Amino acid sequence: MKQLTVSAETETPMVPKKLPAYRQASRLTHPQDTIVNLGTYAIGGPEFIVMAGPCSVEADPQMLGTAWEVKMSGAHILRGGAFKPRSSPYSFQGLAEDGLKLLAKARELTGLGIVTEVMDSSDVDLVESYADILQVGARNSQNFTLLKRLGKANKPVLLKRGLMNTVEEFLCSAEYVLAGGNHQVILCERGIRTFETSTRNTLDLSSILAIKEKSHLPVIVDPSHASGKANYVGPLSKASLAVGADGLMIEVHCAPEIALCDGDESLLPEQFKELMLSLTELAPHFGRSISTLTQKEPSAANNGW
Amino acid sequence: MKQLTVSAETETPMVPKKLPAYRQASRLTHPQDTIVNLGTYAIGGPEFIVMAGPCSVEADPQMLGTAWEVKMSGAHILRGGAFKPRSSPYSFQGLAEDGLKLLAKARELTGLGIVTEVMDSSDVDLVESYADILQVGARNSQNFTLLKRLGKANKPVLLKRGLMNTVEEFLCSAEYVLAGGNHQVILCERGIRTFETSTRNTLDLSSILAIKEKSHLPVIVDPSHASGKANYVGPLSKASLAVGADGLMIEVHCAPEIALCDGDESLLPEQFKELMLSLTELAPHFGRSISTLTQKEPSAANNGW
Amino acid sequence: MKQLTVSAETETPMVPKKLPAYRQASRLTHPQDTIVNLGTYAIGGPEFIVMAGPCSVEADPQMLGTAWEVKMSGAHILRGGAFKPRSSPYSFQGLAEDGLKLLAKARELTGLGIVTEVMDSSDVDLVESYADILQVGARNSQNFTLLKRLGKANKPVLLKRGLMNTVEEFLCSAEYVLAGGNHQVILCERGIRTFETSTRNTLDLSSILAIKEKSHLPVIVDPSHASGKANYVGPLSKASLAVGADGLMIEVHCAPEIALCDGDESLLPEQFKELMLSLTELAPHFGRSISTLTQKEPSAANNGW
Amino acid sequence: MKQLTVSAETETPMVPKKLPAYRQASRLTHPQDTIVNLGTYAIGGPEFIVMAGPCSVEADPQMLGTAWEVKMSGAHILRGGAFKPRSSPYSFQGLAEDGLKLLAKARELTGLGIVTEVMDSSDVDLVESYADILQVGARNSQNFTLLKRLGKANKPVLLKRGLMNTVEEFLCSAEYVLAGGNHQVILCERGIRTFETSTRNTLDLSSILAIKEKSHLPVIVDPSHASGKANYVGPLSKASLAVGADGLMIEVHCAPEIALCDGDESLLPEQFKELMLSLTELAPHFGRSISTLTQKEPSAANNGW
Repeated sequence: MKQLTVSAETETPMVPKKLPAYRQASRLTHPQDTIVNLGTYAIGGPEFIVMAGPCSVEADPQMLGTAWEVKMSGAHILRGGAFKPRSSPYSFQGLAEDGLKLLAKARELTGLGIVTEVMDSSDVDLVESYADILQVGARNSQNFTLLKRLGKANKPVLLKRGLMNTVEEFLCSAEYVLAGGNHQVILCERGIRTFETSTRNTLDLSSILAIKEKSHLPVIVDPSHASGKANYVGPLSKASLAVGADGLMIEVHCAPEIALCDGDESLLPEQFKELMLSLTELAPHFGRSISTLTQKEPSAANNGW
Repeated sequence: MKQLTVSAETETPMVPKKLPAYRQASRLTHPQDTIVNLGTYAIGGPEFIVMAGPCSVEADPQMLGTAWEVKMSGAHILRGGAFKPRSSPYSFQGLAEDGLKLLAKARELTGLGIVTEVMDSSDVDLVESYADILQVGARNSQNFTLLKRLGKANKPVLLKRGLMNTVEEFLCSAEYVLAGGNHQVILCERGIRTFETSTRNTLDLSSILAIKEKSHLPVIVDPSHASGKANYVGPLSKASLAVGADGLMIEVHCAPEIALCDGDESLLPEQFKELMLSLTELAPHFGRSISTLTQKEPSAANNGW
Repeated sequence: MKQLTVSAETETPMVPKKLPAYRQASRLTHPQDTIVNLGTYAIGGPEFIVMAGPCSVEADPQMLGTAWEVKMSGAHILRGGAFKPRSSPYSFQGLAEDGLKLLAKARELTGLGIVTEVMDSSDVDLVESYADILQVGARNSQNFTLLKRLGKANKPVLLKRGLMNTVEEFLCSAEYVLAGGNHQVILCERGIRTFETSTRNTLDLSSILAIKEKSHLPVIVDPSHASGKANYVGPLSKASLAVGADGLMIEVHCAPEIALCDGDESLLPEQFKELMLSLTELAPHFGRSISTLTQKEPSAANNGW
Repeated sequence: MKQLTVSAETETPMVPKKLPAYRQASRLTHPQDTIVNLGTYAIGGPEFIVMAGPCSVEADPQMLGTAWEVKMSGAHILRGGAFKPRSSPYSFQGLAEDGLKLLAKARELTGLGIVTEVMDSSDVDLVESYADILQVGARNSQNFTLLKRLGKANKPVLLKRGLMNTVEEFLCSAEYVLAGGNHQVILCERGIRTFETSTRNTLDLSSILAIKEKSHLPVIVDPSHASGKANYVGPLSKASLAVGADGLMIEVHCAPEIALCDGDESLLPEQFKELMLSLTELAPHFGRSISTLTQKEPSAANNGW
């Protein structure tokens, strides 16, 4: 990870007064884009990074099957939830460590790095021992104890925007991680809550521009959770590329109709493949590239794990 | 204008019970896309239509200069407000008929069709005598008396989404015009009001998908009013193309720093030109085209007025 | 009507720079509370004013029956819509002038002043010839042509807050009327649009405090439209009294289950009577009074029409 | 604590299908009001309960002085934050255990029970060893790991509504605690996030009615955080009483101008005293009472700790 020009420890006497509360996340203290490296991939660079997989890890064949499918379709990173934040206590809560083990198995099989959610400071040690990227969900976007703990983690953090967080508050949440010493933070726009009901949330693509203007951190988009509708995911993915996001997080499920969670918004593997082909073709027109489908041997080896 | 399969007069006994309140605007009664023709251009077809010009018509050189600039840069239609809805009664309220006359002069000069706002039912006769497209602003999106009157107009209507309107309410507003017999309605997403403050409004690009799913009416995007920031207009324009909008409405001003209205969000003519070049290049990758810059002679003649 | 200390014509050279855009509506230019007089009642003074009646004027017995009921229960002013702004063009749109005539008949019968909505500038002459207070609905809160026209009206204006208007924008809308020379403006909080769905809108009672702080204009509350639920109207009415509103606007219908509009939120006459008895008892504890039920002869005569 | 008619373990085969996701929190399974007892006070009964104190515990004299003041003014329970969730990592984060010790000292001095926030599941043991009521803040309203842990706690839980939570989601969060076996849950409305900026949040008093309709749990109001303005706290407190809330949570600070947190919204002790006198006088008119100021000896003894 590159060095920040201003460190948390020494900055106070140096900084001019106008710095925002998210001072380390601000472009004012760190003009260059931050790049988060994961294996051979660089998030925040010219490669347009796609994280894909099921909403939740459910069972061996579902997870491994989907993992292999997204790998073959060109995804860079595998997503899947082992700890699931659900509005109702009676909904499926995830497989916990068993889910993490399945994710690790899927990584072995595919060579894909894995991103998975951690819901509580006390679970960070466990999740960190399996995951390559630690995800903070929208409902924990201001769980400051968790964010502080992640400031001491050795893995990159993927921080989702809270449903009611302004861009500035979002950057302040990132600041909690940076202030703890962990500078590998990836932001994720996933829709905010508004009065509109035709989509689950309102995807705020302008926030990508506001984040890029105010901050050096990479930012990706989750069109699946934002819209809640599988048939909106493709066009919103292309719009995310067009507006300047650094990548995507997309839900893919082998059998969305029996998914334990969020089936309505999951792409089928073949839909995902088609989308990846489109994005690969479109990316160069927006100064980006997707290299996974053009590599000769899409084997586990070339991710460098 | 093509014929609607179901007319307002005869439908009642025919329609099944599940039709939405916006029955004529619904794809259920009219599966094919509606195309609104203006001169040689077709809004809602493969041509990606760009309407551009100053927020308000201010004076002769400003209007004619900007008109010529946007024409030369490839805009299809000229925008400009002669009647301005302003939050404060002490703000510039527009030049009224003098503004309409300037717009007509700009049309003569450039051959571009003109779109301009009408704020009240009692002004429709006047505005209709000058304009090619009658615009309804966001604050009048549920001014039902005005909408009813426009149902009797002979010109296409450009209806902006209200800051507070759901997609379904937006379509109900369009239904007022359709129910009156005017089927030439173009919708315009221009951002909704949310808690986020880094942009003036929150551009809801998912609404394009919801509108295309529910309705056959063409829909364009106004990234200038949505964001309130000139440097966001380019990326949001590209995202609008990518998500499937039928066109754009963009503010361009020769001297944004002295604009009487909305200078912060206006592009300079050279910025607009650069954007049009990009969009022209990008459009084919999204199944669209922009023909204005590739025509041999971008003269007034080829708009066919 | 009392004189404003600063008139629209002469203020410009006098006012300090920090005045808000709603300068005549601001307490800075007019520290004393404005009182709008209607017959023997003063809106904005110690009397807690209750406007009540059906959402829409539907027919002779409905209107006259309800009018008499609300009069006997202590209402000060009769409400009822002859022009109805409806989301759908196929919903009941009101009886127009026939409705106004029925309202006038109800006034004759009961002696109650009448407040009714005007939806368009071209209808102001007509509505003004019947109504005692001209109401502007939430969807027309920024219909500036209408507001300007009302600035020239000779009747008080009841201006409802738009579903997406901030308090400051609300005061700017009032300013349009004041700037035209009509200083008899009554504001009405009726709920704003939020993500919450358990009520139709979210009643913002804090806005009463913000309005009282920033402006001298009287402000009442409409708990019927805000909540959309008849059983919420009583408690919200008491809360409105408690927070400092100057009065209420309440929907009452003889047979809510067959109302053509908003039946779910209408009180039955006996529920309204019970509420008026409670409010009359409670008012003195909040520095207010309701005199209608304690007058010896609640006849038409004592309203002074 | 009274018994719930349906226990978490056995309900599944019994319950009809239409139960909401918040089945134990629902009135359908538990029609009678839940009452949470704390010392001699019953929250959810006729006594209108007032929790008061500084936003954060700052230092010995501040805490003990304010504690004594609120006790003498009639507060039932002392509030104060030892763990503070702050948007910025560089803001004062609370005194942690030292703050809890000061709160315990204040309880000894005044006899008031104490309510204080717990931010993370790993802190529950510690906070539970000091506090009488465990508060969950708005930003942790969907921190499900924390809520599950509190389901196993032996102290009542005060759950604040999240800025982005609908009433139904709020009840689902309560359900997490109930499902764990802890039935002593108090809800707290503290404003939701909207577009309005004249108050910090928009206090949704209608939610009190929705909660009372849907659930048996007691609900109080925090007008201090909702409004962010000390001069709004009094009127909003009275409106909360009028609408049917079971109590209040109010910020009081001896020297708001030097408070480390939220000084703008804190009442001075004398303002709080005046408010308590008003509320005590008003309560009987709303079927409530406040007994603390009418007891002969407001000593530590009579709280029964």
